[in-house]
Amino acid sequence: MDQINSYLETHKERFIDELIQLLKIPSISADSAYKKDVILTAEEVKKHLENAGCDVVEICETDGYPIIYGEKIINNDLPTVLVYGHYDVQPPDPIDLWTSPPFEPVIKATKTHPEGAIFARGACDDKGQMYMHVKALEFMTNTDNLPCNVKFMIEGEEEVGSVNLATFVKNNQEKLKNDVILISDTGMIAKDVPSITTGLRGLSYVEVEVTGPNRDLHSGLYGGAVANPINILAKMIASLHDENNHITIPGFYDAVEDLSNEERAEMAKAPFNLDNYKDALDIKDVHGEKGYSTNERNSIRPTLDVNGIWGGYTGEGAKTVIASKAYAKISMRLVPHQKWENITQLFKTHFENIAPASVTVKVKPHHGGEGYVTPIDNIGYLAASQAYETTFGKKPIPQRSGGSIPIVALFERELKSKTILMGFGLDSDAIHSPNEHFGVWNYLKGIETIPYFYKNFTKLFQEEHK
Amino acid sequence: MDQINSYLETHKERFIDELIQLLKIPSISADSAYKKDVILTAEEVKKHLENAGCDVVEICETDGYPIIYGEKIINNDLPTVLVYGHYDVQPPDPIDLWTSPPFEPVIKATKTHPEGAIFARGACDDKGQMYMHVKALEFMTNTDNLPCNVKFMIEGEEEVGSVNLATFVKNNQEKLKNDVILISDTGMIAKDVPSITTGLRGLSYVEVEVTGPNRDLHSGLYGGAVANPINILAKMIASLHDENNHITIPGFYDAVEDLSNEERAEMAKAPFNLDNYKDALDIKDVHGEKGYSTNERNSIRPTLDVNGIWGGYTGEGAKTVIASKAYAKISMRLVPHQKWENITQLFKTHFENIAPASVTVKVKPHHGGEGYVTPIDNIGYLAASQAYETTFGKKPIPQRSGGSIPIVALFERELKSKTILMGFGLDSDAIHSPNEHFGVWNYLKGIETIPYFYKNFTKLFQEEHK
Repeated sequence: MDQINSYLETHKERFIDELIQLLKIPSISADSAYKKDVILTAEEVKKHLENAGCDVVEICETDGYPIIYGEKIINNDLPTVLVYGHYDVQPPDPIDLWTSPPFEPVIKATKTHPEGAIFARGACDDKGQMYMHVKALEFMTNTDNLPCNVKFMIEGEEEVGSVNLATFVKNNQEKLKNDVILISDTGMIAKDVPSITTGLRGLSYVEVEVTGPNRDLHSGLYGGAVANPINILAKMIASLHDENNHITIPGFYDAVEDLSNEERAEMAKAPFNLDNYKDALDIKDVHGEKGYSTNERNSIRPTLDVNGIWGGYTGEGAKTVIASKAYAKISMRLVPHQKWENITQLFKTHFENIAPASVTVKVKPHHGGEGYVTPIDNIGYLAASQAYETTFGKKPIPQRSGGSIPIVALFERELKSKTILMGFGLDSDAIHSPNEHFGVWNYLKGIETIPYFYKNFTKLFQEEHK
Repeated sequence: MDQINSYLETHKERFIDELIQLLKIPSISADSAYKKDVILTAEEVKKHLENAGCDVVEICETDGYPIIYGEKIINNDLPTVLVYGHYDVQPPDPIDLWTSPPFEPVIKATKTHPEGAIFARGACDDKGQMYMHVKALEFMTNTDNLPCNVKFMIEGEEEVGSVNLATFVKNNQEKLKNDVILISDTGMIAKDVPSITTGLRGLSYVEVEVTGPNRDLHSGLYGGAVANPINILAKMIASLHDENNHITIPGFYDAVEDLSNEERAEMAKAPFNLDNYKDALDIKDVHGEKGYSTNERNSIRPTLDVNGIWGGYTGEGAKTVIASKAYAKISMRLVPHQKWENITQLFKTHFENIAPASVTVKVKPHHGGEGYVTPIDNIGYLAASQAYETTFGKKPIPQRSGGSIPIVALFERELKSKTILMGFGLDSDAIHSPNEHFGVWNYLKGIETIPYFYKNFTKLFQEEHK
């Protein structure tokens, strides 16, 4: 099994180059202008799974972008690991803040990654982390180290809410049957502080439209006499948080679990330095819900953020206009037990209720998903923990993440198995931001660690099922 | 003098065609992409002034776009009328709401303009209204009806705050010496309700930038823990009005004149129907400062409107991002006695004061100008009033406008003469909006009325200076 190190030594240049080729394709699922590229990426993933040793690989059509399914079944008495990942990426804008083009990958050294990091949209989220699993499979098949069955399900709509994955999973429960689900689409605390994500937040994403007059108006002739949809939208958004930064939507907190002081004390043990946090973001002060720490605010508490806003004249110079319409994209991060459809409805009702008679309001639900928690006594978690211990030389810390992978809750519901989130990215990798990157060291460390998970899990599974 | 009607009959087709040619040039001063077109328009205006009979026409360079100066001096003992107008236009966006391209003028009949209106950006504001004066001069020179001296000052930066005109006026007081200034850049109440604008609001226009984290962040990993600049900007904008829609900036109302009940009662006599107003804008309710009527809110009261807002992801689909920056363009309409530089400073100080420590704020003053009032016993006003009476068959109503022509206050200060605002456009002409248009009837009526102003003014001036 320690062959992995020599195998990596021999093939790492190729592993890096293959990922770079994949990153050159702008598979932006949110923007239909890139449809061809998204589909081309799907075909590339299929090819790579075949080369890595899958016996069967299918491009499964959906109402949106295809899902790539691959499998290598070596023995039906052995457990099956289902790997999930996505080949689509976030839009790169604001494009002008990238120091190199988002789809022309380059390796640059950084303070955190002195041995170099691959800069490109999707480098970490999720092409790079997904491809670690493909290369780990290549190693296990080429060196007879695959101890169990493996299935892959790689989708192309994660960044737009996995709109068609739910149907696919519901309709393919037998095909996707597994004993544990393995995902690398999260991060770890630091290169020398390995961690495993045990909790995810849910998500409700909506778009709102506020309409005032039926046309843009001259702000001199009408200013002060008619409702300005931008001013009204600002007032409505402002009213969604009270002076303690609690969210004011009636019923919003009803299902939120209150963690015990013991649990909160346990969380507080994770290494965290507020000054370093503020320095890294170049902010004078943090900002959030009264009564909770920064780490609690972005993990165990639900939130509401405006992700985009636009209206009126936004070009160069000045235009004295009152816009007819103003828009915002608003997302809420949810904690376990909050149901996203319910929260979306609560938002819609509330937002429509607080609109003054001088405007009309439309709320368009976008997508969403539930939160998720993995118990740390689960054999999947133990297998992963031991794998990190082997390759990092220290036990990983269980960590609740503020991010969302909405389909994880769905997997548990439909496939009746737990998901293990083995992330190798870092917060500083700037996923969803300009200059996203993924450390070469982290990439190779992931490929090194994953095979140990397979070995440990198979062993623990067989003990459990003796 | 009644030759004007036969002259119009003979030449109106050409008058309309010449205006249409001028409207085809996209002279958008706010967008540097159109620089060539703005300059081409300046050259066209020079040519038209020469053809109309000016003895001297100069393209006067400035730090921005040139000012066209023209004159015809027939006798230094006679009074001099200075005509001001502008050849630049507002940006046409939102472009997709135009029923015909903004720079491909077409004549279409409307409910208000059964005899047809010219649809194009700038048709009314101000190419159409400016060109009425050029054609009125052509008539007067070709038929020996010019009773006094005339000067033209046509600028190309009115829609961006006349940034260089002030310097030009200060440095050319002798050249611009005049006895009355005549401007057509306002409207009248209705085709059968002629009116003259006797008051204008001032303007202060600023752009604000709110910066949170030093890069766009993943809203899951950071949401709830750091200040979201869009949410903060919304809260700051919302706080600029209280529950009665009074503006909350300290000192903002200090210089505002309180009109007497008599004056307010006089204003209230202007024909106005709130239901028609709401129907025309397709709104269920109006919205404005408590204690004032709709007509007062948009004329004698100062206002604050967001003219544009942007930040975060505004493209297709969804992006779960916390933006690093959010922006807004904000303008305040001012009433006489409010000094715009002072109001701009009050805004800047207040906006910086209310910013939480978790963000940094920049306020960039854009441009501005003072309000203005014309007394109705001024001989310029009387000359205009009699001119309307002759061509409309009824006495025009003096009216305060909510709009701003910042330069008018400067003219009075620097050139020591009063400005008469003879507007022939209608509120429904959609200036600054998609589908701007100018009624053919209004255009020709303007050309018909202007020569009577010259005749009346010369007569009243000579009586006054006997």
